[in-house]
Amino acid sequence: MSILVVGSVAFDSIRTPFGEVEEILGGSATYFSVAASFFAGVRLVAVVGEDFPDEHVDFLASHDVDLAGLKKVPGKTFRWKGYYEYDLNDAHTMDTQLNVFEDFDPEIPEEYRDSDYVFLANIDPGLQLHVLEQVRSPRLVVCDTMNLWIETRRPQLLETISRVDYLLLNDAEARQLADEPNLVAAGRKLLGMGPQRVIIKKGEHGVIMLGEGVFFSLPAYPLETVFDPTGAGDSFGGGFLGSLSRYPEMREEDIRRSIVYGSVVASFNVESFSCDRLRNLTLDEIEERYREFSDITCF
Amino acid sequence: MSILVVGSVAFDSIRTPFGEVEEILGGSATYFSVAASFFAGVRLVAVVGEDFPDEHVDFLASHDVDLAGLKKVPGKTFRWKGYYEYDLNDAHTMDTQLNVFEDFDPEIPEEYRDSDYVFLANIDPGLQLHVLEQVRSPRLVVCDTMNLWIETRRPQLLETISRVDYLLLNDAEARQLADEPNLVAAGRKLLGMGPQRVIIKKGEHGVIMLGEGVFFSLPAYPLETVFDPTGAGDSFGGGFLGSLSRYPEMREEDIRRSIVYGSVVASFNVESFSCDRLRNLTLDEIEERYREFSDITCF
Repeated sequence: MSILVVGSVAFDSIRTPFGEVEEILGGSATYFSVAASFFAGVRLVAVVGEDFPDEHVDFLASHDVDLAGLKKVPGKTFRWKGYYEYDLNDAHTMDTQLNVFEDFDPEIPEEYRDSDYVFLANIDPGLQLHVLEQVRSPRLVVCDTMNLWIETRRPQLLETISRVDYLLLNDAEARQLADEPNLVAAGRKLLGMGPQRVIIKKGEHGVIMLGEGVFFSLPAYPLETVFDPTGAGDSFGGGFLGSLSRYPEMREEDIRRSIVYGSVVASFNVESFSCDRLRNLTLDEIEERYREFSDITCF
Repeated sequence: MSILVVGSVAFDSIRTPFGEVEEILGGSATYFSVAASFFAGVRLVAVVGEDFPDEHVDFLASHDVDLAGLKKVPGKTFRWKGYYEYDLNDAHTMDTQLNVFEDFDPEIPEEYRDSDYVFLANIDPGLQLHVLEQVRSPRLVVCDTMNLWIETRRPQLLETISRVDYLLLNDAEARQLADEPNLVAAGRKLLGMGPQRVIIKKGEHGVIMLGEGVFFSLPAYPLETVFDPTGAGDSFGGGFLGSLSRYPEMREEDIRRSIVYGSVVASFNVESFSCDRLRNLTLDEIEERYREFSDITCF
């Protein structure tokens, strides 16, 4: 099974209570790809500038990420600079330089158009729609978004949401998009916008999933130190969709199990800057933490 | 098995986004008693004023709450007035009139001193210690607290905590008492203060329990409307300890199951003002929601 992801590949400069880094590898499509690569082949569509080093390309390739869709164009790579206080749920943006990402218009390579699974990472919903126009009958389309698009591109976002299978977003975004403070009620409203399932990421509080007559709630893996939460949502998405692609029937239990795998990969990802913890992560470690998830939640 | 609770019985005046009430039955010991009464006999020690109506006494008695320890003294009953915004996690206090509660010095009736289970509801830790001096070798002592005592009576509170079996408190209190922003790390620090178990209530985010080499995490029951969160923590405590008293061996699975029962009773309690939802709640309804909890959390 093949997974197509369209999103950003970026340089992040980040300060957290535990350290500070400059221009490390980041971006939604990066985190998603590396996380999903533990379970499935990934096809990446993104754009970088001429300053994007081979070392990062080699790293992604070493994780079996197909890079035929990674375009290198004149100019500089997308840069984000931000910091987190002790409340690691809130990222504070200090600087955003879109650079080559500003004119990103995702063109899906012909050989990617038959992808079985599509992840529309957090990009302009107009571009997400443009991706949907290019792919041929995928089995499942999952879409992420962010507050910026909820505020500035609402009609396009609603159009996208009505055409995807699963909507993935965080708790603040869910409340904002549904205009409803209660998260369960917000989730129900979002279901009414078209998707079969709504998955709401709650950071340190775990994740909930809603579907027609279905509700699932998983607490977060208990970490005593969240070193850097950047990419938690995207690595959740990658672990989730990567895992789900192994279960073509997509039964309820397969979806739930995949939410646990997504949470496992995300919990590893936040243990260090960038995707560093995922670089040498093993499937054994993933399976062990999956079992721990069973232990800490069963009654 | 008998459960002794020492705490407040009060009149609450409350405004939430869903309504407003004046001088309804409230107080930590009230919520605890009614919640626990679904599972076990409860012995209540508290004080009220001459204005406390027979109707409330009759209601508690109808739930098999033993009221030999409920003292009626000259003066007025404790009154609390507060409101909640849409973020129902934060109670805003408008007025507190301690009245007869100001001189509350819990005297445990002779026939209560052999109680098997003791719940020290949220009162001055000096009074909690005084209760501990009066009871004879209970099987289990659970203690609750609040920010006021953490700020003003820290040495006495630490002394109490070192002498109880289980410490029950909410997430903000856990962070404050441990002086540690990460909740898992805070829980570990609190464990180091003496109790066998630390149970941290997280409101809409559920509950976590820590013990030596043990961690349990349960999400909250998904309510689309939390009508009034007052008493959620105490009804959790009552449902928890009431349930646990049915399992004298107190195996890990018994403790976890009881945390689920506590969450179930608390989820009913917040569906209306005061203990109104608990008045005609049935064990069948409790069991049904327990099964729902299994459904929404299993994977």
